[in-house]
Amino acid sequence: MTAEIFQRARRPEQKLQRQDAILGAARDLALRDGVRNVSLADIAAQIGIHKSALLRYFETREQIFLELTAEAWRDWAHYLHAGLDAAATGSAALVADVFARSFSDRPLLCDLIAHTPLNLERNVSPEAVRRYKQVSLGVVNEAAVLVHRVLPELTLAECTEFVATVASLAGSLWQIANPAPAVAALYASDPALAQACVDLMPRLRRTAEVLLAGLITSRNPRSAQR
Amino acid sequence: MTAEIFQRARRPEQKLQRQDAILGAARDLALRDGVRNVSLADIAAQIGIHKSALLRYFETREQIFLELTAEAWRDWAHYLHAGLDAAATGSAALVADVFARSFSDRPLLCDLIAHTPLNLERNVSPEAVRRYKQVSLGVVNEAAVLVHRVLPELTLAECTEFVATVASLAGSLWQIANPAPAVAALYASDPALAQACVDLMPRLRRTAEVLLAGLITSRNPRSAQR
Repeated sequence: MTAEIFQRARRPEQKLQRQDAILGAARDLALRDGVRNVSLADIAAQIGIHKSALLRYFETREQIFLELTAEAWRDWAHYLHAGLDAAATGSAALVADVFARSFSDRPLLCDLIAHTPLNLERNVSPEAVRRYKQVSLGVVNEAAVLVHRVLPELTLAECTEFVATVASLAGSLWQIANPAPAVAALYASDPALAQACVDLMPRLRRTAEVLLAGLITSRNPRSAQR
Repeated sequence: MTAEIFQRARRPEQKLQRQDAILGAARDLALRDGVRNVSLADIAAQIGIHKSALLRYFETREQIFLELTAEAWRDWAHYLHAGLDAAATGSAALVADVFARSFSDRPLLCDLIAHTPLNLERNVSPEAVRRYKQVSLGVVNEAAVLVHRVLPELTLAECTEFVATVASLAGSLWQIANPAPAVAALYASDPALAQACVDLMPRLRRTAEVLLAGLITSRNPRSAQR
């Protein structure tokens, strides 16, 4: 990627191409260094332009990451479809497994989830927040419909509750599972403290299983005996 | 609080008194403005001293907030004892209610939970992280023992799982329940987007109930019929 593509974009497709290059650079850096460590200057340097040029395409650093979050949610929904569209009715264990993998295979999405309310939604225009929310709510509702098809004994509202809870947990557990280097060294040196660390995939799958068992039991106590 | 108490602390009790004044100022500001908005300079200004004087007592801004997090966990454990020490065996609904209130009544603790792995543990010495982890792990284990006494059909490990999951959720849901002013305005103006907002206490209580029902069902399927 070179600076020359950042000469003035005259046609809409050129503008889109430039936006994609910025998003790609931000994505690569965030995956390598963590969202918290990537500045607007880092993104600009990665593509070889000045950061003022970058602000022709995005409002702020946070808007770039909010766009990446929306993109990551859409990709996540595709994965859920692939994993659950053909699932047999009643496969709660499969739902838990697919949800756990959908997050543990997507480190950038997990990292972004914690940053969204804390940082990203705080430094963009209301219109950018509105567009983001429409995507994230749409995707959560789409995921809830998928769960509802596999587990029709739950209401759609309960499926939405499940999806939102697992997504929140994925965001907070990922931060704990990926500690700062000094904290990781401390865990390695002191087995008593290592209890505080988390293995994301098994922990999310287990919690998803427990949540589904609890929702099914609350709805229909007899089903717990199956 | 005035600058005069910040003349050189000669005796250990004077040093403790000064540390308390700094922690008190940080606590007040964080409750008013949110943890993310409070800088070292803000804390220093609140007590009327220069921030270099503050660094005689704490390593960094983050160490001040990590101390407040440890203090908030200890206070939280006292609340759980008050709510659960006299609880009758089997009161899962009471456990869920006490846990939900223990977080929703403690906005500073909830705000700090999200900041701990994301920011606080990243800008302090390994020794400060170690001291903090000893407090937080000790308190989580203490809470798990309390839950285990009320719900002895669960293993102690399952009770720890419950406590850690509700605490993680409290941290992430609090950030969603307390959005930036511009996001709150958006929710108020657009009922379709308001679905993304969360009412912390009922949401936490409901999820705690579902988790306990799921854990109890997984352990002992017949108990779900009670």
